[in-house]
Amino acid sequence: MDLKERALKVHEQYKGKISINVKTPVEDKEDLSVIYSPGVAEPCKEIYENIDNSYRYTTRGNSVAVVTNGTAVLGLGNIGASAALPVMEGKSALFKHFADIDAYPICLDSTDIEEIVKAVTLLEPTYGGINLEDIAAPECFYIEDRLKEQLNIPVFHDDQHGTAIVTGSGFLNALKVTNKQIAKTKVVVNGAGAAGIAIVKLLRSMGVEEIILCDSQGAIYEGRPYAMNPVKEEQAKQTNNENVQGTLEEVIEGADVFIGVSAAHTLTFDMVQRMNNDAIIFAMANPVPEIMPDAAKAAGAKVVGTGRSDLPNQVNNVLAFPGIFRGALNARATEINEEMKLAAVYAIADVIPPDELHEEYVIPSPFHNEVVTKVAEAVERAAIESGAIKKKPSNLTVRV
Amino acid sequence: MDLKERALKVHEQYKGKISINVKTPVEDKEDLSVIYSPGVAEPCKEIYENIDNSYRYTTRGNSVAVVTNGTAVLGLGNIGASAALPVMEGKSALFKHFADIDAYPICLDSTDIEEIVKAVTLLEPTYGGINLEDIAAPECFYIEDRLKEQLNIPVFHDDQHGTAIVTGSGFLNALKVTNKQIAKTKVVVNGAGAAGIAIVKLLRSMGVEEIILCDSQGAIYEGRPYAMNPVKEEQAKQTNNENVQGTLEEVIEGADVFIGVSAAHTLTFDMVQRMNNDAIIFAMANPVPEIMPDAAKAAGAKVVGTGRSDLPNQVNNVLAFPGIFRGALNARATEINEEMKLAAVYAIADVIPPDELHEEYVIPSPFHNEVVTKVAEAVERAAIESGAIKKKPSNLTVRV
Repeated sequence: MDLKERALKVHEQYKGKISINVKTPVEDKEDLSVIYSPGVAEPCKEIYENIDNSYRYTTRGNSVAVVTNGTAVLGLGNIGASAALPVMEGKSALFKHFADIDAYPICLDSTDIEEIVKAVTLLEPTYGGINLEDIAAPECFYIEDRLKEQLNIPVFHDDQHGTAIVTGSGFLNALKVTNKQIAKTKVVVNGAGAAGIAIVKLLRSMGVEEIILCDSQGAIYEGRPYAMNPVKEEQAKQTNNENVQGTLEEVIEGADVFIGVSAAHTLTFDMVQRMNNDAIIFAMANPVPEIMPDAAKAAGAKVVGTGRSDLPNQVNNVLAFPGIFRGALNARATEINEEMKLAAVYAIADVIPPDELHEEYVIPSPFHNEVVTKVAEAVERAAIESGAIKKKPSNLTVRV
Repeated sequence: MDLKERALKVHEQYKGKISINVKTPVEDKEDLSVIYSPGVAEPCKEIYENIDNSYRYTTRGNSVAVVTNGTAVLGLGNIGASAALPVMEGKSALFKHFADIDAYPICLDSTDIEEIVKAVTLLEPTYGGINLEDIAAPECFYIEDRLKEQLNIPVFHDDQHGTAIVTGSGFLNALKVTNKQIAKTKVVVNGAGAAGIAIVKLLRSMGVEEIILCDSQGAIYEGRPYAMNPVKEEQAKQTNNENVQGTLEEVIEGADVFIGVSAAHTLTFDMVQRMNNDAIIFAMANPVPEIMPDAAKAAGAKVVGTGRSDLPNQVNNVLAFPGIFRGALNARATEINEEMKLAAVYAIADVIPPDELHEEYVIPSPFHNEVVTKVAEAVERAAIESGAIKKKPSNLTVRV
């Protein structure tokens, strides 16, 4: 049976991937009177007195909503909220398996930014955090920004930051393997969607100074008169210091690093040959990468990573989001800020000891037993040190 | 330790009452590629082709959202969405324990009808049914009506219909015990909130012809110039055939049945004495009933039920909602209609065999092992026979 058949069979056999588990005993009338009426009134009253008590008496402190509108699901595109549910359930299963976090799928039937922001805002009392998932760019940027502003719980769009963080870790370790220095590295990022933009932002905060961001029209530069949007405009200001114009083929010349979150076969043998020595390539188009590792290596690349589990150096978000939310929930952070993301980058990179590091192993396996703990510890510490546990004025309705 | 302390202790110890369970194996990279990328794309594509496949490949067909805005929580009133979470978790635990349904708490921070209707409408792709809970009257009526109109999945406000159904079952069995005939019975319902209105409607569809509905101002009659709302106006037309005016004390004269969903001590010894012989009383104010059973009996009542688990004949919604949703989900009903509610009434009543029926036992225990199965079977059959499995034109966004 091939993977496709097996995937359908498993989903049908188990009727999805998650279920509810009851933690407390429900054996007799007395149990009922403790977990339900009339006993349940006691924790309700405590929370009414002080909303923080929801973290003491309910699941809230261990819960995350996995929220999508189904506009950018895997490589499938805008397939809608209903068809996105298998991915959200899968994500919930991964949250539970890797970090013991209770994550709940939320598929919202809307493509309207205001409607989505409003719905998630209303849901705030139910959850300890919000993981946004598979929402198309550029809407995802506005939705995340608005929710971060409004909510007093962490909001994290995994397609942006999860991918960026794991790429950042692989990038750091690849620099060690190739003896390149971060400040002197020229990086070309191909793809200006959710992940591409987040990767550029993170690389900049890691200290990369020379970045050229490309989309299908080539390099993005200040004043480019076509195919721009406010997010690209902002990146045009922050990157491409020399305002280089040209196609990917042209701007790849002399680059140390290529990071692709674009489409199959976008990077050719010839282009890799024109990169710097010991080139580093993360070709993350799914399921077919921008270039296959063997071709890239033959053209002179030293380190190659992809999004695929059957190839070395898989950039897999599951290395990041479980530990990040675990750390954020443990700290009871009210946001996931840059310091926490950077802490995750270094923690994931450091899981591989220096003597084990080599060109085929710059990113640990998601099943490496130290990943989640190390990431969670680092993120929790960063949350506390950076002040991410400070509460903002709540937008929750006051009931009197 | 008293109940209050124990309730707080249990809630704190378990940190709430539910958690997520992963049903499928997640042991290695291959499992990951089946339940997540890239294998998960297959069920996504199947659902995109035909939305009905969400019932085949996901948890949707076994899932219910327990939705509140926290405006009428237990006897606590409008304590808000955050403070309502313990009750919603408790309800989810009961759904799972009694009917193996995966129910998810949804606490919405809003008192605005439109906002709530909109949010729940957006959530439709995630769930197989919607259980509305602890939403104040009269808003709950409009919210339920609007959602029933818009959604293609069952919507059921348990505080209305669950209470009404179990009361209806107890009422039926009490008639048997007292040899009263349904069409000749005079019923006084005290309390015109969510439960009271639903009880009146259900009793009418069961064949009760003489009903007087009271609120704190006394009998509700057509043209009453004070304390009315559109829902009470409607009931004034449907009940109180002789347009009787007066206080509860006055209209209770000669009644066979008193049903209270009002407040402690509303029904006095003296009032019960002025009821018909072998009076039937369901005094469901919580935690202190409208009259205590011993007092009611001493005044001449024959059958007395309350909302309390420590007294005989407890009107407990857990007798109804698990089996009702189990039946509705099994039939894949698109609504829970009157026929299905009536089927539940008779199924619960019939759980007690005629020879076991007596004045202290007209309502079965929630732990009676036949309740959920019998209710589910009856409701499923009624759904099929009444056409509740017909789909309405979907309001879900079409993505192309």
